[in-house]
Amino acid sequence: VAADPLTRAAAEADDAADPLAAFRDRFVSDAAGVIYLDGNSLGRLPVATRERLGAAAAEWGERLVGGWHDWIDAPVRTGDLLAEQVLGAGPGEVVVCDSTTVNLFKLVGAVLDAPDTPRHPPALVTDRGNFPTDRYVVEGIAAQRGLELRLFDGEPDAATLPCGAGDVVVLSHVGYRTGALADLPALQAAARERGATLIWDLSHSAGAVPVELRASGAELAVGCTYKYLNAGPGAPAYLYVASALQAELRSPIWGWFGQRELFAMERDYDPDPSIRRFLAGTPPILGLAAVEEGIRITADAGIAALHAKAVAVTERIVALHDAWLAPLGFELATPRDPARRGSHVALRHPRAWQITRALVERAGVVPDFRGPDAVRLGVAPLYIRHVDVWDALDRLRDLVARRGHEEFDPSPGRVT
Amino acid sequence: VAADPLTRAAAEADDAADPLAAFRDRFVSDAAGVIYLDGNSLGRLPVATRERLGAAAAEWGERLVGGWHDWIDAPVRTGDLLAEQVLGAGPGEVVVCDSTTVNLFKLVGAVLDAPDTPRHPPALVTDRGNFPTDRYVVEGIAAQRGLELRLFDGEPDAATLPCGAGDVVVLSHVGYRTGALADLPALQAAARERGATLIWDLSHSAGAVPVELRASGAELAVGCTYKYLNAGPGAPAYLYVASALQAELRSPIWGWFGQRELFAMERDYDPDPSIRRFLAGTPPILGLAAVEEGIRITADAGIAALHAKAVAVTERIVALHDAWLAPLGFELATPRDPARRGSHVALRHPRAWQITRALVERAGVVPDFRGPDAVRLGVAPLYIRHVDVWDALDRLRDLVARRGHEEFDPSPGRVT
Repeated sequence: VAADPLTRAAAEADDAADPLAAFRDRFVSDAAGVIYLDGNSLGRLPVATRERLGAAAAEWGERLVGGWHDWIDAPVRTGDLLAEQVLGAGPGEVVVCDSTTVNLFKLVGAVLDAPDTPRHPPALVTDRGNFPTDRYVVEGIAAQRGLELRLFDGEPDAATLPCGAGDVVVLSHVGYRTGALADLPALQAAARERGATLIWDLSHSAGAVPVELRASGAELAVGCTYKYLNAGPGAPAYLYVASALQAELRSPIWGWFGQRELFAMERDYDPDPSIRRFLAGTPPILGLAAVEEGIRITADAGIAALHAKAVAVTERIVALHDAWLAPLGFELATPRDPARRGSHVALRHPRAWQITRALVERAGVVPDFRGPDAVRLGVAPLYIRHVDVWDALDRLRDLVARRGHEEFDPSPGRVT
Repeated sequence: VAADPLTRAAAEADDAADPLAAFRDRFVSDAAGVIYLDGNSLGRLPVATRERLGAAAAEWGERLVGGWHDWIDAPVRTGDLLAEQVLGAGPGEVVVCDSTTVNLFKLVGAVLDAPDTPRHPPALVTDRGNFPTDRYVVEGIAAQRGLELRLFDGEPDAATLPCGAGDVVVLSHVGYRTGALADLPALQAAARERGATLIWDLSHSAGAVPVELRASGAELAVGCTYKYLNAGPGAPAYLYVASALQAELRSPIWGWFGQRELFAMERDYDPDPSIRRFLAGTPPILGLAAVEEGIRITADAGIAALHAKAVAVTERIVALHDAWLAPLGFELATPRDPARRGSHVALRHPRAWQITRALVERAGVVPDFRGPDAVRLGVAPLYIRHVDVWDALDRLRDLVARRGHEEFDPSPGRVT
């Protein structure tokens, strides 16, 4: 008979049966052995990446400028790997470059400048709860171009998505606070019906849940690689442009790596016909090496297995929350339906800031705080075990029951 | 008595007296021991950087998201070091981020969007011979905004700089092809007199010649770190905004790292009052670590000593060219006055492409080709010896005298 699912023994049993259990050893452990529930802010360092960075530096030292014969293809080569293994996109549809912010700026600008943009002024649409940099990018472009910025409240919903013909909509696939997983195919279809162009931010979904860009008819997307893809702090980001749209879109940032025949330097700007046209400056080769290693581990595990693990671990968090934490004043801010969430769970509590600090500084647990009132528990399926979340929630229950968080300053300060 | 300056013995004597001689050992050697005259495309790998990259990765693995408490200041901290040691700028005037292309895009856009831009449409001005990405950026912005793109021929000259009130001018401090060093103070004064705003690209000067931004009244600049600053392929670039201008300028790319109180995520965009407002996305921490190490070596040597070495080595190239190469059909494309050039020399020859290939593949010398007809010899003063250029030009003379280049395809292909 199965053990009571709320026991540590049950968590241990689930770990023993976990097909991904061995992946944990492919990451470097921190000396303190913290329970790291913030892999969705910054993923852990893969052992292979540590080695690869050394090799990439050695290659620079050895090949010098001649290394560019291979490096020049790294943004597209890495993008192809990401497309095939993680994003459900085709070859030549993804390129790894710049930051999520800069890539989103490029894609919004590209859509607005496209020849077939309708003559009436489009609105830029996003949800008020979207990640700050996404909001700022569209807010900035709206201000510069004198366009309407339309911010809507609540989770994105296909039935009510407030957009019309020619509008540009930016949505996150998984919400950074709530962990809610948007219905990408339905929203994509809704945008298409209304004649709007939709750009997805995949930062909180890629590597943890299936992202079937092609199958869903998604046209444009951006995302970062330093969360579930474990490519390191500030690692290069990516952008996706469906093949059919590439000819008509052009980055607003005209740079030499987007140029057709890059080294024919005497010509006017003539963007490369491929996804390369969305490159700008010289690509960061060491950063790209880390991205490639991060994607490889994800590919080895497989998105289906990662998603199954994410569901199982977040289900355990929900169950333990209901049994242990709800009586202490917590409230689940993440959808209960596992098909409607990513790989993190947000627990609301009026003292969320203090509780987060206490977990980090007294309990060896690293969650994240997301204002105004959420403790966010990210469970990177490559290296988080069922016992990790059991132990973390056990410590959280104990901490709050004995009011251990009250020694901490109640004003939110700087955290990531 | 001094030896004949054209002999190898004279070069050896100059190396023996070189106060920077020991810096060569602070760089990783390639196994083949090529004579590397392309450090102005991609600098060599410093030994300290190899170690620092390992330490930076270890810090990521150990500190995880908590590392951001320090990493968050890396763009400005590294920028301050660069400002003080290399650029002649003040603290808080330089930030290391993004690529040169993206940074130039940000600064041109910031100037055009500034509240005091005159109502008549400004022209965007640069020289036709400027580096491609600089031309492309201004060409793109001109096209998007419907502004005049004014390309002028020849080297930038203060007397004839074709700009007027409100125009935005982009110039390189050292020309990537000819190696000509622009008269920065005079051009800056000319732009100011005419009411134009001048943005400098310091990619080919920083780390090799003095760049006194503050003393020259320079207002805006960008540059890369992978040439004389030896920060690695595609390393983060930098931008400079004089303190007095920061309040009125705002990046067109509104991102979360440019936001005041970055982690107060619920607010509208409100740019940080400092140079941070020119940041966009999450900064690349491994890349920044390499930039810091590259700047430190440059700082240890000192710009005055580096410039003196650059002058001495390029003087030797000019003398050997005149004696050995001019009779073989070469022509000096770089100013003879050492006060008017950077740390590279371009030699024009109708067979420059074939000669470059032959040097790389048959002679163990790595110069660069720059179309249509130049062999470019970069002499990074931190690690190039006088005997290196003597040997390189000796091999070049021998190669061309026996027509060894004629076995190579005369059509330029892909090189960097």
